[in-house]
Order: sequence, then structure tokens, then C-alpha cells
Amino acid sequence: MSHHEFYMDLALTNARKMKGQTDPNPLVGSVIVNHQRIVGIGAHLKAGEPHAEIHAIRMAGELAQGGTIYVTLEPCSHHGRTGPCAQAIIDAGISEVVIATLDPNPIVSGNGVRMLEDAGIEVTIGVRKEESRKMNEVFNKFIVEKVPFVTLKAASTLDGKIATHSLDSKWITSSDARQDVHQLRSEHMAILVGVGTVIEDDPELTARIPNGRNPLRIVLDSTLRIPLDAKVLNDGLANTWIFTSRNYDQKKRHKLESLGISVFETSGEIRVNVQDVVRILGEKSVSSLFIEGGGTINSAFLEKDLIDKVVLYFAPKLIGGKDAPTFLEGAGFDLMKDAIELTDGEFTKIGKDFRFTGYPEKRGEAK
Amino acid sequence: MSHHEFYMDLALTNARKMKGQTDPNPLVGSVIVNHQRIVGIGAHLKAGEPHAEIHAIRMAGELAQGGTIYVTLEPCSHHGRTGPCAQAIIDAGISEVVIATLDPNPIVSGNGVRMLEDAGIEVTIGVRKEESRKMNEVFNKFIVEKVPFVTLKAASTLDGKIATHSLDSKWITSSDARQDVHQLRSEHMAILVGVGTVIEDDPELTARIPNGRNPLRIVLDSTLRIPLDAKVLNDGLANTWIFTSRNYDQKKRHKLESLGISVFETSGEIRVNVQDVVRILGEKSVSSLFIEGGGTINSAFLEKDLIDKVVLYFAPKLIGGKDAPTFLEGAGFDLMKDAIELTDGEFTKIGKDFRFTGYPEKRGEAK
Repeated sequence: MSHHEFYMDLALTNARKMKGQTDPNPLVGSVIVNHQRIVGIGAHLKAGEPHAEIHAIRMAGELAQGGTIYVTLEPCSHHGRTGPCAQAIIDAGISEVVIATLDPNPIVSGNGVRMLEDAGIEVTIGVRKEESRKMNEVFNKFIVEKVPFVTLKAASTLDGKIATHSLDSKWITSSDARQDVHQLRSEHMAILVGVGTVIEDDPELTARIPNGRNPLRIVLDSTLRIPLDAKVLNDGLANTWIFTSRNYDQKKRHKLESLGISVFETSGEIRVNVQDVVRILGEKSVSSLFIEGGGTINSAFLEKDLIDKVVLYFAPKLIGGKDAPTFLEGAGFDLMKDAIELTDGEFTKIGKDFRFTGYPEKRGEAK
Repeated sequence: MSHHEFYMDLALTNARKMKGQTDPNPLVGSVIVNHQRIVGIGAHLKAGEPHAEIHAIRMAGELAQGGTIYVTLEPCSHHGRTGPCAQAIIDAGISEVVIATLDPNPIVSGNGVRMLEDAGIEVTIGVRKEESRKMNEVFNKFIVEKVPFVTLKAASTLDGKIATHSLDSKWITSSDARQDVHQLRSEHMAILVGVGTVIEDDPELTARIPNGRNPLRIVLDSTLRIPLDAKVLNDGLANTWIFTSRNYDQKKRHKLESLGISVFETSGEIRVNVQDVVRILGEKSVSSLFIEGGGTINSAFLEKDLIDKVVLYFAPKLIGGKDAPTFLEGAGFDLMKDAIELTDGEFTKIGKDFRFTGYPEKRGEAK
């Protein structure tokens, strides 16, 4: 590990700990080093508050002069709510800047670096680039595409079943893995299920962890079959939005809206059009979506190229059953060579279970 | 790590490298240390040849005197083909013996230790016990139960499919994982498939790696539908045995037997009785069985509590399909709480793919 990586790792660690508290801003961390001594650390804590570099510069005080600043994201060059950080770096007399990644927004990307270089400051770009990029994967997509970063979550046995043939699914994974899911719910702006799950399980879809933030709840319901006494419609723990098709029940819509529930009609004639769902959520500034659907909903999103990341929990169990459901159903691909490949896949042990994360390749066109 | 573990690890490493060449004997390694210096190393190389301790004692020569010997398995006390190793240790003047595991055979277990202790030698038992036990898991079962250690192998996508809905399965995993399977074939005495696989794929079922040893090929075929021109009946690369039910075709049996193929009738009226298969293989001294069946065969063995270990390869791919087959079919269990739990589960990266190994809990009675 180079000394650049050594310091950038600390900036990344501080940045990551703020996950969930900086929205809609990205996670950013910063470290200032002078004569081999860390003289300032900082992180962006909350939208509207100072950027990471400003905190670090304030902590360093006069020791910022002649020092090296590490920042996980390119310092901004624009007068936003907290002023251009590139200018603050110049003003502090810092002589070297090490950056993990450029600003993902193509409109401003590179401007901060240019401002620094114009002031005669040495700039290094790309130290721990992948780590920084991954840390802000949601922000990076949303700022450019204006649609949410979509994560598909499923929990199955090792033989791929999400329930027994008689549809019993309590519980597949152990409590550590379920807690991990609640953490992920808390980190997402919205959670999505199908109406079948609401009818079957009447879930709360909340983040039941200490300091958990409940996501917006999205239910796909082509005909508005949702029971009016469902918890998600009545418990007040978070907002609930329903997406339907053109095939919905007009009376039911009025009833739902009189309960304060938002109902969105999509262009699907029979089933909800999932591309519309993602587009509408983007328009409503929902930057991250966590899908906890069954095999049919999961397949619908995957086939339309809408999944950015998958998080799969595998319980070390075997259940069997030709008719037991799996987390991807639909028609499926015809040939193995057409399977969707996942990159950057890794398994992590979570209590007794295993968690896989990976990124589906994008096909460039909807099937 | 204690110094005992340090030396035992070397004994284990040497022992493991002999995998496949010591049958029907277990893997055993040995190290002799005298005044903090390794003065001898040994491993059992081949049935009929000296045990690990004898090689190490010979290498140590006079330096064995007063030394400590590390052995992964309790030294034998009986006059087998190579004489009692416990006596050789005593004769060499060794003053301390460190053992990983006692002999798994209850008839002789502890006798070697007793002989050593009676001669005034200090004996420590249990250093790297689990590692040694796992290394000889096949031997340990067979020596006691006289039936093969059964490993179920499957390769699936992350959504649990072993083929697409149109039954295309070439290839799920990449070449590294397939090579790993050939290594495992080479380490097993027999490989088992269903006749469906033979009809569909006409496989060779051989170990296509350098120095690979081809296992005995077992085909389950309830009615003797196997095509007479199947490679496994004609290529001469290994023996092929067919297990059938009472429902078999008598004429076909004669044809097969005239080709030199052994046909075994089991007590199953319609389908092959898999308990009979395992029992008969045990009687024929087959100590390890590698099952590469489809979902139905796998379920049959699992439901009868006959699987000792599972090895699952997961390709980081998604294929989908409500009708795509998974590696465990049959009826499956009714309730998630009845799922078979796997202990000691671990994932290892193999090229682009992931390999899971684990041990199904035994239920104590057949379902």
C-alpha cells in the first residue's frame, strides 16, 4: 500500500460511516497530512452543511499550509450551499491534492481539478478510485440518469428456493441476515414489493434496527387488489405509494386516495409497466430503490434491464421441491449463453448465512 | 499458533498431497523434530508401503532419539502389512508423540496410544484434530460403516437453475470450475448419474485432468433404457455398472451383460432403490461416491439421508424461468423449518465461479 492509499483509506472510512445521513449529497471524506502527520480529518455530514474538505481544513488550521489533502471525490468548483471547496483548498495554502474520483456529473466533472491546477497545485487522481465509486454508486447513477439505483434483494436456500412448495418461507435466513436486510432498507429511499406479498404476509416493510429510517413503501398492484386494512396503508410508519396498470379498479382508487395513499397509473394494459415505475420514481427524486419482490416481479425488472445490483442471502439449507418457487421466475432465458452475468461478485458470511453482492451486466437495450 | 500446530500443519500438508494415491488406506503425514530442528518428514504414499512414521524415522536416523514425532493419525499397534508403527517409534527412542486424531476404527482406536504410554512416552492428542478428521472423511466413514462416503455435486446459476427452461446447460460454470469437478472425480472411486443424463448428454464421466484417475461409472436406470451405443458402455475408459429396479427389461439386461456391463437389480418396484445402491457399493468396497445427478436423483438420495457432503458450484449468472430445473426437485419439504441444514459451510472462489462445500445434518432416520 502506498502512503497515498494509506491516507485515502481513512478518508473512505470516515465517509462511509455517514451512509444514509448525507442524502441527497454523496459520501465524501477528507484527510490533510503535513510532514507525515495527519493534521485534519473531515467528512460530509449532512446536506446543507460544510463539505468534507472544509471540516478538514478547519481542523488543520495553519497546519494546512504546505500540506497534502486527500479527498474521496473531486472538490467542487461551484458556488453551492457551501462555496467552492477548490477555492478553500487554494486559500488554505495546501500544496498537493490527491483525489479518488472525479465528480460523476459530466457537467462539472474536471472543473475542480482545473481550478486547483491553475493555482499551481499538484493534483493526483484515481487513488482508491473503485472504492470511492462503489461507495457512491447510488448518487453516481442518479446525478447522471435521474432514475433510481435499483437493488434486487432475495433470500433463498442453497437450492435456490424462496419458499417451500406449500409457500412457507418463515424463516429462510437467520436473524443476523434479516437484520442486515433491515440495515439495507434503512439505506434506501424506497422499498418495493408486489401486492401478492402484501396480501400474503401483510408486512410493515420498515427498517427495524436502532436508528433505522423507514423507506417509502412502493406496492405494485395491477388491479388494486390491496386490502384496505393492510398495515402499509394504515400504520403511518412511512408513506406508501401504489403503482397500477390501466386495468385498475376506479372505485378502489378513490378509496385509497381518501386514505391519503398516492396511486400512480402506468402505461401497462394488464400488468404494471415497471419501466414507468422507475421513471416516475426518478421524477419524484427517489434515488434508490430496494426490491423485495417475488420471482415474477424480480424477473420483470431484470428482463427490462432495470437492476443495478443484486444482494442475495443464501441460507445453508436444502429444501427441494420441483414446485417450490425461486427468486427469478417468468419465462427465463432460452440459452445458458444468454444468462445475465454479474460482475464484482462476492460472498460474505453474515451470521450462519452467506450474502452475495454483484452487478448485472447491462444489455444496452430492453428485451 | 503453537509450535505443535506449526509442525502438525506440515504433516497435514504432506499427507493431503497424496490424496487419491493411498486408497484404501487413509492419508497420513508425519514430522520429527529434535532440538527445534525438523529432522524427518514422511507421508503414507501407497497401500502396502511404509506408514508415514516409518519414512520419517528412517529420514531422521539417529536424530530420532529423544525427538518429538508429529503424526496426523494415531500410530498403529497391529501387525499389518508394515508392522506396528507404535513399536517403531518406541524402538527409535522418540520421547514425545503428538497426534491429531485417534484411529477412527473403534476396534483399534486408542491401542497405539496405550502402547506408547506403556513405554513411558509422553503423548498429546487432538492437535489439528478437525483438519485431520476432514482430510480422511471418506476413510473415516467407510472403515466404520462399510458404505461409501457420498458427495452430491451440482452446478447452478445464482438463482438456483441447473439449465434453462429449454434444458440448455452448456455451460453454467467456467472452465476453472469444470476442471475442479474433474479433480473431484479423480479423487472418488465412483461417479453416479441417472440414465436421463446418459441419454441427453452421452457423457464420458471421466477425470479429464493431468494424471486424472477415472472413477467407476454408475448409472441408475430403472427400466434399462440406456442406449447400447452410449460412450460409458463402449469407450473402455472405466468400468460402468448399471443399477436398475425390479421393473427392468430382461432382454436388455442380457445385451448389456454380453457387453461386459454389470447390472445390479435393486428392491425398488418402479424406481431404483437408492439405499440398495449405496449398500451394494459398500459391499463391493467402493468407499467414495460422487453424485452428478439431476434434481430428481439428488432429491432421492437426500431424502433418504444418504448424502454426507455437498459441493455446489455457483456461476455468477441469472437465468430465470419458472420452469427451469433446479438441482433439488422431488416434492421437497413442506415447511421451511424442516429444511436440511448444512454445517461447516464455506464458499471459495474458483476462477469466475464460487464453490460451496458443506455437510448435511443427518436426521437419524430415513424419511
